[in-house]
Formats: sequence, C-alpha cells, structure tokens
Amino acid sequence: MAAPPNASARAHRARWLDELKRFVRFPSVSAQSAHAKDVRACAAWLAEQLKQIGMAGVQVIATPRHPLVYAEWNRAPGRPTVLVYGHYDVQPPDPLQEWTTPPFEPTVRGPHLYGRGACDDKGQLFAHVKALESCLKTTGRLPVNVKCLFEGEEEIGSPNLKPFLERHARALAADAAVMSDTRMLGPDRPALTYSLRGGLSLEIEVTGPRQDLHSGTFGGAIHNPAQALCEIVAGLHDARGRIAVPGFYDRVRLPRAVERAAMKKAGPPDAKILADAGAEHGWGEPGWSLYERTTVRPSLALTGLTGGYQGEGSKAVIPARASAKLNIRLVPEQDPREIDLLVRRHVARITPPSVRSRVTTHLRAKPAVLDRRHPVMQAAARAYRRGFGVAPVFLRSGGSIPVVNLFQDVLGIPTALMGFALPDSHIHAPNERFHLPTFERGIATCRAFLEACTNLPTGRRARAQTTAVAMDAHP
Amino acid sequence: MAAPPNASARAHRARWLDELKRFVRFPSVSAQSAHAKDVRACAAWLAEQLKQIGMAGVQVIATPRHPLVYAEWNRAPGRPTVLVYGHYDVQPPDPLQEWTTPPFEPTVRGPHLYGRGACDDKGQLFAHVKALESCLKTTGRLPVNVKCLFEGEEEIGSPNLKPFLERHARALAADAAVMSDTRMLGPDRPALTYSLRGGLSLEIEVTGPRQDLHSGTFGGAIHNPAQALCEIVAGLHDARGRIAVPGFYDRVRLPRAVERAAMKKAGPPDAKILADAGAEHGWGEPGWSLYERTTVRPSLALTGLTGGYQGEGSKAVIPARASAKLNIRLVPEQDPREIDLLVRRHVARITPPSVRSRVTTHLRAKPAVLDRRHPVMQAAARAYRRGFGVAPVFLRSGGSIPVVNLFQDVLGIPTALMGFALPDSHIHAPNERFHLPTFERGIATCRAFLEACTNLPTGRRARAQTTAVAMDAHP
Repeated sequence: MAAPPNASARAHRARWLDELKRFVRFPSVSAQSAHAKDVRACAAWLAEQLKQIGMAGVQVIATPRHPLVYAEWNRAPGRPTVLVYGHYDVQPPDPLQEWTTPPFEPTVRGPHLYGRGACDDKGQLFAHVKALESCLKTTGRLPVNVKCLFEGEEEIGSPNLKPFLERHARALAADAAVMSDTRMLGPDRPALTYSLRGGLSLEIEVTGPRQDLHSGTFGGAIHNPAQALCEIVAGLHDARGRIAVPGFYDRVRLPRAVERAAMKKAGPPDAKILADAGAEHGWGEPGWSLYERTTVRPSLALTGLTGGYQGEGSKAVIPARASAKLNIRLVPEQDPREIDLLVRRHVARITPPSVRSRVTTHLRAKPAVLDRRHPVMQAAARAYRRGFGVAPVFLRSGGSIPVVNLFQDVLGIPTALMGFALPDSHIHAPNERFHLPTFERGIATCRAFLEACTNLPTGRRARAQTTAVAMDAHP
Repeated sequence: MAAPPNASARAHRARWLDELKRFVRFPSVSAQSAHAKDVRACAAWLAEQLKQIGMAGVQVIATPRHPLVYAEWNRAPGRPTVLVYGHYDVQPPDPLQEWTTPPFEPTVRGPHLYGRGACDDKGQLFAHVKALESCLKTTGRLPVNVKCLFEGEEEIGSPNLKPFLERHARALAADAAVMSDTRMLGPDRPALTYSLRGGLSLEIEVTGPRQDLHSGTFGGAIHNPAQALCEIVAGLHDARGRIAVPGFYDRVRLPRAVERAAMKKAGPPDAKILADAGAEHGWGEPGWSLYERTTVRPSLALTGLTGGYQGEGSKAVIPARASAKLNIRLVPEQDPREIDLLVRRHVARITPPSVRSRVTTHLRAKPAVLDRRHPVMQAAARAYRRGFGVAPVFLRSGGSIPVVNLFQDVLGIPTALMGFALPDSHIHAPNERFHLPTFERGIATCRAFLEACTNLPTGRRARAQTTAVAMDAHP
C-alpha cells in the first residue's frame, strides 16, 4: 500500500525544500528586460522538474517576451480535467538594502524560507508540483487528468497569455482551473478567495525645461516638474481620502447588507490589517472598514516616485522631468479601459499650463467574482479540510489576477483560488517569505484537491456553472 | 619686452586647453563619499600645477572632509594683497544618460569644452591660474601680492572653510578677494555680480508602514507615504506660486523703485531667461519679472524626489518611505536658520497624522550684497574692459556663494565676483560646458585684474569700505 501523503511529505521534506530553494534562486524578474535570460533559465529548470516527476508532453513555449511552461497527464479517460496554473516570474526585489539576506539567495530562518518569489508564486506553484510528484510516485497515476500551465509574465499583467489561450483553447480544454496565489488568514485559517479587484497600472511623466537647470539661477521663475508632479498627484485624492477623478465611482455598486455582514464576520478586523501592514494608522474612504476598503472599494496607490537628484546630500538643480507610477485597484463593475480614460482626462485637466504631462499604461486587469457554490470551490474547500484540518473561510481579495478572467472568457472555466500565502508573507515587499509548515500542508492540500476533483462535472455542464463577471467594454 | 597677454594666450592655447581637460577629468564630486579619493587626487594635481607656474608655499591642507589647496606669491612689499578663491570640486553628474559625452571625459565640440566642472568652477578657477602663469613667465613677477585658496567643498556648502579661515585669519590677511564663479550675460556682455541669494537645502522624509506593502492587498487602507509626501510638497506653495510657509516673507524687503528700474535696464528680460532655461513658460510669484523672481525674491525648488519602485514597467507596492530634497534661495534680509525653523514647523503642521515626516538640513548659506563702488569692484570692471573690450553690467545673481560672507565676516574683505560662465553653460546640468574664447579672454581679464589691483587701498582702510550684509542671527 502507498504511504499516506503526509508521511511521504515528511520523508521528502529536505529534498523538496532544497528544490524550492533552487527554484527561488533564479532572479526571474519579468518586468526588467535585463533579467530575460534568468526568466528563460527558470522556465527550463521548471520544465525539467515536470519531466522528472513523470509528467508528459513537457514544453517550454516561447512568447514575444517570456516563455510558458506546459505539462500534462491525460491517462484518466472519462474523468474530469483540471488545469493547474501558477507563475514562475517574480516582482522586482527593490529596495535591495532592506533585505536581511539577498532576495535571490533563499535562506531558512525560523519556520520561513526567505527570498523573492518564495511565496509569490514559486512556493505555492511548487506545492502543486510536489503534490503531483507525490501522487505519481506513490500510486503511479493521478486521480484526474491534469494540465499544468506555468506563466512567466504574471507580474507584468500576462500580456501574451490571452493570444496563447485563444490559439490553443481546444488543447487546453479543462473542466476547472486551480491556482495558489492568494492568502489565508493565518497558518491555521485557510481561505478561498472568491473575488478579486481589477488592476490598472499607469505612469505620469511631467516635463518642463529642456534640461536640468541650476536651482539658484532659475529657482522661482520656472515651474519645477517635480513640484508640478506632486501637485498633480495630490489632486488624485480629495481631503477625505476618496479618489478625486470625476466619474471614478459612477459604476461602483454598494455591496448588499447581507454581504457586508458576512464580510464583517469572516474578514479580518481593522486591527489585524494594521498589524499585518505594520502601520499605526488606517486611512482612506470614510464609512468603510479597512477590509472593505481593500476589497469592495476601489483604491489608487502611488507605487513609485522619481525625479531629480537621488544621491547623497544635495544638488542644486531643477530637474527637467519627474514621474510617478500609479496602481489603481478596481471593483467588479469598473472597466479598466474606462477608468484609464477618466484618469487620463483628469490628469490632463489638473496639469498646470506651465509644464507638460504624459500618461503611459503599463497594465490593465479586469476584476472578477467567482461562484462560491461551484463544485470546484467545494472541492477546494474539501481539500483544505484534509490538508489543514479546518474548513476555509470565503474571502474577497484586494489583489488582481487577470488570468482568472482569461480562463473564464477564453476557456469558459472557473478557477479555484486555493492560496497558501500568509498575511505576513511580505508579498511584493523586502524579506518575502514562505511559511514552510504551510508549504507542507499545502502539498497535502493540493493532492487532496486532485482527489476531490474526481466528482467535478465535466464538459458543457461545468462551463454553464461559472459566473466570473463579464465586463462591459466602455462604449 | 614681454609679449602682451593676448599673444601669450594664443601661443599657449593648445597646452592650456590640454591642462584644463586634465583638470576636468578628475571626478571630484564632493557630495559623494565614493569620490573622496578623486577629490584628493584632483587637489594634488592642482597643487602641482601651482608649483609648476612658480607660486610659493604650495600646500594641500587636509580638513575633516576634502582638502584645500593653498599657494602664495609675497614678493611685492607695500603693494596690496589679493586673495584668489576658486573651487575644484564639482556637482554630481546625474542624470548620466543625458550627457552627449561622458561628464568626466572632457570633449571639445564647436567653441565649447564639455564636462562636469568645465565651467563650474574648474575652467573659471583655471583662468586665474593661467593668468598668474602668464604674468610670472613674461615678467618674472606679479603686480600685487597674491594668495590662492582653492576649495574642495564648495558644492556641499563649504562646511570646513569657516574654521580654517578663523584659525589662519592672520596668514590669509588680504585687501580684497576675487573669484570667478558667476555668469556674464553673453560672450560679449561681461557682468559683475553684486548680490547673491542665500541657500538652504533640506530633505523631507515621509515614513508609514514598517515596510513596503502589496498595493492590492493594502491599497485603500493605509496612507501611502509617497502620496503623503506629494501632498506635503504641494502644500509648500500656494496656488499663485508663492511659498506657503507662514512667516517666510516676513523679513523680505521690497527693492527700491530706482533699483527695480536699474535691474530692468541691465538685467535679462523674461524672454532671454526662458530661452536660457529652454522653457516655454515662466512661473512664479505674480508682480515680479523673471529676473526679479530669481534675484530679489526668494524661491523654493524641489531638487529630488524618491520613493517606491523606479525601474522599468510597474510594481504593485505601497512604499514604506519616500523623500524629497528641497533647495530654498533666500534674499538678504532672510536668515537661513530662521527659515529652516519655519519650514520645519510648516512641514510638521501639514504632515497628515497617518504618516510621519522628518526634515534634515544639508546646507545653509547666507545671502550677500556687495558695494558696487568698492575699489576692488572698480578694478574688476577695468579688467573686464581690458579683457572683453566693454564695461561690465552690475547684476544680481540667484545663486549662493557662502564663501563671500565668510571672507567678509572672518577676513573682513570684500570679494569681486568676476565670473566667466555664460547663461547657456549648463551649470549643474548635463552637458555642462565652458566657452573657450571666453576662457581665453578670461585669462587676459584675470591678468588685467591683478594689474588694476595695484591701486587697491591696503590695510584697515580696505576693510572699512566693505559692506557685505551682516545677518542678524535669529533671536
């Protein structure tokens, strides 16, 4: 008889951690072209892993930018097919000086593995790979058919995934998808995410004089582009913390009272969110809890600010240009294209005539809501109960995963968001880390999920049950 | 008979340019500690130059940071003594990508020598060195006694000059000082600067959460330090372009009507200032010309802005901190210490309670006004007429040279600001350049200045005539 998954996980613990470290060591930063080679090397390594564990049809598939890694196991005819998605690219590691150990030298301290991507999403993706391995090694087969699709462009908005899915929709046909790229509430509090905010990343550049000027010679006579940029940015919110872009809230629907009550019960209280953030004070739209502000209400965050002299000490200069990066999060009724347009109009309107401004769009992602009663959600809930010993809560997330919409729109399937990140995993931040006991329970959960999926409805019936919100394009 | 200076200048043109290039090649960036070695090497090279041209008592004098270079020629007993000041340190060269040729690979294009420091102040300082050389080589002597004091910390506010002057006031005794570190109005329009604004360089740092946060997970619930910084910076000016710090203008005196009329006649019109700046639009305090806004009115410029992700593309992050560098220019009645305090109070007052702010002072320099009728000003005017064939105009400058106050306060002598920079020399900016025909005429002017100084009053009489504004310390 095959060993139970937990025993197998314990036996392989050291090797699996070692492999995860090798995975994290690749600086697969998709946003920075200097790292394109590292992204490719990471894809090749991941493909090799999938071959070694016994998956078939393993391929590294080139795209115009970073490759996809594909693998399958199709030897359960008549059984449902599950598409396992994850991403092996990572966020830029800056600011580097704030890491205790270098971001691409994965290091175990206490119960955590530290490193950029350790949690988002290499560690979580790897829980699925190790669950497949454990299943194949102990039973020689998988309980359902599996297609793995691992992306190298998630952190830059998946620009090449849609055309790929469209071209290969038939080959990628499945009954449901699963991905682990969301948060639990704590090590013993698993959570199934059923709602995601959309995303819109913009950059505002303000230019003025042809080149940098001496701040003594010209100070007082020329509008400083860095100052004008600050004035524009200050004009994006009103004094109460609401976004000041005209029309921004027009399509935002108020959540029903019953949902607000459920959120209040299941979701984290303000104090927990502040503790997770390491912040003393909350901020934002009056009349909403912090959990609501980050999930059922849209937000606009300044993610980067650059202009003039950034070195030690001082430099007497009026910079010729300055720029700000923005990340807007949208709720389901908002269309990223429409909001993009509204923000551009507002920025143009509040740009002082003494400078010029230009807005660039880096990425647009639609919001999504998933049906909590769909069988794949029930399968994920069952798997969490097996892996963690408790039922998951259903959560809204403030983040964006555009892939969920693509799977709905192009493949017609829902996605179970069965995440293993913790509130203090420092996703996108310095000292990102993955909680190793959760990694192990995650592997057991992923294996239990495959087993629970044997009951999934297959074919047309599955697709009829998906309810990801389809956005109306802006007229 | 000795050759006239111009003929000698022509004969030595190639060698002098070659030497200036070697001088500019040192990346003597005083603000950046990584360049401390380069600053020292540059000082040693300059000292060697002074020895070679026949100056005596050449020394490289250590200070707590960057050294001074001293040399003298004291063989004209009974004649006046002139202190020649200049600085061999330079501004940081950023932004590097905007230089046509690298900042420390001096390159001649057209009539200009390009390189960081080519004009500010290595080229202008070198005009004095070459004038001394030309004089000593052709006549074997100098018309007056000369003490050279060349500084390596001017661009960081001369932190160690005052204690040095105080310790060596007797050895540095002179009847007047001269420095070339100011602008003319054009290649044929020499100018004597008689007024300098003071300077105050501050940095505002805003901090919020303990570390960077995911902008999806926390966006809308936590006050973004970069956004709060923009709000604070936007609160430093009012909507009309006046500085919004309470009390800021309290001590500013209105110039007399006769001076405004003279400034209008001698100073550059708005169109000329805009052309020099490469800007389409003016900006600032209503009711004043651009020349007035940059000279008799104070100003506040944002010189640097940093926060969050500054790389390619986007990163979904709420930065834990952001900072802005400010450069404030003060008119004669304003005390840098008092203004520093007022700005700190204002920043504290407008910092939202949801973040923390901290202000650091990088440098403070007093404003100065010089008496246009002082004999050393007349000597400089005569020298310009010899070197350029026309009389100089008297100009106010928007820049700051704290050394002028130190010479007044500690040594009791006035300084002739006999500059050779041009409005389009790109001081402090990329592609800084020195106009080589002006370099040559500058050498002739410096030599003529020494000759004109034979008439300077010496001893106590000289000191009684100086009128640099003595600032009242803030009570």
